[in-house]
Order: sequence, then C-alpha cells, then structure tokens
Amino acid sequence: MTKQELIQKIKSKQSFLCIGLDTDLEKIPKFLLDFEDPIFEFNKRIIDATQDLCVAYKPNTAFYECHGSKGWDSLKKTIDYIPKGIFTIADAKRGDIGNTSKYYAKTFFEYMNFDAVTVAPYMGSDSVIPFLEFENKWVILLALTSNEGANDFQFATDSNGEKLYEKVIKKSAQWAGNDKLMYVVGATRGEGIGEVRKLAKDYFFLVPGVGAQGGSLQDVAKFGLTNECSLLVNSSRAIIYAGKDENFGELARKEALVVQKEMSQILKSKSII
Amino acid sequence: MTKQELIQKIKSKQSFLCIGLDTDLEKIPKFLLDFEDPIFEFNKRIIDATQDLCVAYKPNTAFYECHGSKGWDSLKKTIDYIPKGIFTIADAKRGDIGNTSKYYAKTFFEYMNFDAVTVAPYMGSDSVIPFLEFENKWVILLALTSNEGANDFQFATDSNGEKLYEKVIKKSAQWAGNDKLMYVVGATRGEGIGEVRKLAKDYFFLVPGVGAQGGSLQDVAKFGLTNECSLLVNSSRAIIYAGKDENFGELARKEALVVQKEMSQILKSKSII
Repeated sequence: MTKQELIQKIKSKQSFLCIGLDTDLEKIPKFLLDFEDPIFEFNKRIIDATQDLCVAYKPNTAFYECHGSKGWDSLKKTIDYIPKGIFTIADAKRGDIGNTSKYYAKTFFEYMNFDAVTVAPYMGSDSVIPFLEFENKWVILLALTSNEGANDFQFATDSNGEKLYEKVIKKSAQWAGNDKLMYVVGATRGEGIGEVRKLAKDYFFLVPGVGAQGGSLQDVAKFGLTNECSLLVNSSRAIIYAGKDENFGELARKEALVVQKEMSQILKSKSII
Repeated sequence: MTKQELIQKIKSKQSFLCIGLDTDLEKIPKFLLDFEDPIFEFNKRIIDATQDLCVAYKPNTAFYECHGSKGWDSLKKTIDYIPKGIFTIADAKRGDIGNTSKYYAKTFFEYMNFDAVTVAPYMGSDSVIPFLEFENKWVILLALTSNEGANDFQFATDSNGEKLYEKVIKKSAQWAGNDKLMYVVGATRGEGIGEVRKLAKDYFFLVPGVGAQGGSLQDVAKFGLTNECSLLVNSSRAIIYAGKDENFGELARKEALVVQKEMSQILKSKSII
C-alpha cells in the first residue's frame, strides 16, 4: 500500500486505528477452544466486527509462533482473511545481518504478503535495508518504545546530547523516505512523541501503548499529528478482549467505535477531514 | 544445559565449534530438492557428519520461517534430531515488551526445546528478562555484532566515554550471571573481543564471523579465551556449503575437522585440556 492510499483510507474511514491481533489462547473466550483453529476463529470474528472502524491490523508474531507450525498457519489464514485495503503489519521486531534479514523480508512481504514489518535497529543499516527493497512495502523501525525497559538504552546520550533513539531516527531517515519507512513511538510518553515529531516531520508513527499500557489518545494526537495525520495508533487488549463470551465481537466493536469516534473528532478538529 | 556441562563437552570434544544451520534452498545440493523436506534432509546429513566435532548447532530462524509453517516443521524436526548433549541455539534475535517476550521464550524453550536463544537488547530489561526465567536455558544477548551496520549504533559513545555495546553488557550483567547469559561478540573485530572480555570476564561469548565473514580463529582465541574457554565460535557457510554434491556431508566434516583440530591445539596450548 502506498502512503497516499493509506492517507486516503484514514480520511474515508475517519480513523487512524490499528488493532493489534495479539491472540492469546489463555485470554480468548473459552467456547472458541472447541474450534479446530481457535486463534483464526477469534481473529476472523474480530476482523468481521471491526474492519470498517480501523485502517490497520497488527498481529504480533510471538502469539502465533509459540504454537509452532500450527500457529504460523493461523497467522497465514489471518493475513489472507484481512480484506484488501486494510494496512497489515507483522509486529515481528526482526533484524539480522543483511544476508539473513533478506529472508525475514521474504517471509513477511512475499510468503505472508504483509504491507509492513516492525524491525529492530540495533544491528544497523545492513540489518534494515533488505526490508526496504520491496516495492510498496514498509519498514516500521523501533525508535522509542512504550515499555519500561526503553529507559535502559534508548535514552543513552552521546557527547553532543543526542539520544540513541534520536540517532536511530536521524540515521535511518537517510536509508528511506516517508513512503517506505515509519517509526514505532510509544504513547506512554506524550511529550516524547513531540520530540520525535520534530526529527521525523512527515514520517508515519506507529504508536503502541494507548489503552492497556496507559497512554492517552489526546496526548498522542496533540504531540504527534501532522496535516496528513501520519499516525497509526494501536490498541490490542482493550479492544480484542473487551468481551469474554459469545458476544465478544460485538463488545470489541463497541470499544473500537469509541476510539474511532474520538479519532474522527480529532481529525475534524485539525481539519484533516 | 548447565555451564559446567557445556564446559565438560568442550573439554571432552576438544572443540568450541558451533555449526550454523543457515539452510538455504538456493545453496544446498540440488539432488536434495527431490526429498519431501529438503531442509531437514540437508540438516540431518550435516548433523550426522559433524556431531562429534562440534559442541553446538545454531539454526537461524530466518531460513526456516521464509517457508512458513513448512519451514517451522523443518526446524522442529531438526532440533528434535540433534543428539542430546549438544548445545542448541535458536538464532532468532527476538525481543519485545515483557508480556510478549514471554511467548517468544515459550516458543524456543518449551515448544522447540532449544538450550539458548539470541535476543536483541534495544527494548531493554523487560524485553530480555522473560527469557531468563527458564531453568537451565540461556539468553545470548546481541552486544557487538560482526556486520558492517554494527558501526551505526553499537559504538555510540556517551558523555562518560561508554559505548552502547559496553552499556548493554554492563546493564544486562545485572540481570543474570554467566550461568544463564552469554553475549554475541563478532569475530571480525579481534581486539574488540578483548575489550568485551574485560567487561564480561567469565561470560560465554558466541562468536560469529569466523570463516565466510573474514574473522580469524587465532585472533578470537587470543583476545577472548578464558581458563574455562568461555567461547563458542560459529561457522556456517564455510562448513555446511563446503560441498555441492552427494558427498557434501563428507566435505562438511572435512572442513569442521580442520576447525576442530585448530581448536584442540588452542585449548591445549592454553592448558584448558
């Protein structure tokens, strides 16, 4: 999907919501465990219930590969089921030497046909660039993450006062433009998003941490929104686990609708739609 | 496997060789493509031919997951086939927020039953610690990698003169001792290994980059060896792709034997055996 197509979807759906499909057998409604593929069955119903309210789905690969090849089949069925026109993100946080990263890129862009994959920056340019060589596919590079451990290394400051996450953004912006590269920027740091926005003026940010992790959508929008939106805000648990019974799809929709309405207001107030 | 068991294996086999099972359908002998599972068939023959010469095998997950669930089956069959008493490393370079890293740890330690997994440090403590909570299992944390991109961020130096890879080692050494934690330290930087050794005196290092990537075993030993060895030196392509025909196992063995003999000499010269 191109950047313009993504912006168009955001405008037409009045939403910049990404729904995280972190599908955990311990958390999904119990009745689904009787199905042959409970993970896919859960995802299918979540997608059916929410697809008009979000612009992206983001399965995190950890929740699939812990079931081995069966989990990979559930992931493939899920990605194949997501309707065309919805942006798909493999939240895989991969990265290896160039020769090897190429195979991760093939996995997610060719075998699975995702639009985007999250990539870890620690190993530098040749670990990231192989992912950038696929047409209309995206790298979403970890910059400033939403977890507590982000403090351990991402704020390491060099003698010029430049923090590691700033260095990651400045350097990687030389590898690709905002039509192929996005950044993960955690929502638990509202003002932090503003700092990152100064460095990456019109790059899309994938923002986790709204909802269960405590981030506020208003803060994210205040500090991160551009006149093309340039935000994908992810919510996983608060939406997909809103219900525990047969009506979980309906309850997920209800939660997603609350977020979408708030997003619609934000987009209108900023004259983006 | 415990640290003492690993050291014992190194002594009895007179080897600290790790063989990387980076099994690539484009590089394996063509006749194997007629088998139902060419990747497993290749691995099986490499393992049969080399198991007495190495102390560890390290499949890199990228080469398996690019074939989807079929590749994951090949990986599982491979890990199940490796004889007990050989240390097994999932070179997966995973890492995510704590809640999610737990599932990666389950994947490699429970579902696959590897002894160790490589982990990326960028997201900090809560991305690494869930992997450390499994008995007799190991985290091998990326510190100083062997690729060119390592220069992009790993040498970022703070106002106290501390480089990022040094910070990663110092901080992570607070999370676990040398009985659960190892470091990836690239062989393409002989003296660099000496610098890391000063920081992590008796931690094992997994050293990639010897052979195809240009590192020298003598340099690695000179700068990295301790009186308990504390090194696993990986070689992938130079061994597993030594041959292109029916006799590829034999040729892989021949290459592995050259390395093992050099390692035996090194261990003897340092009075480790």
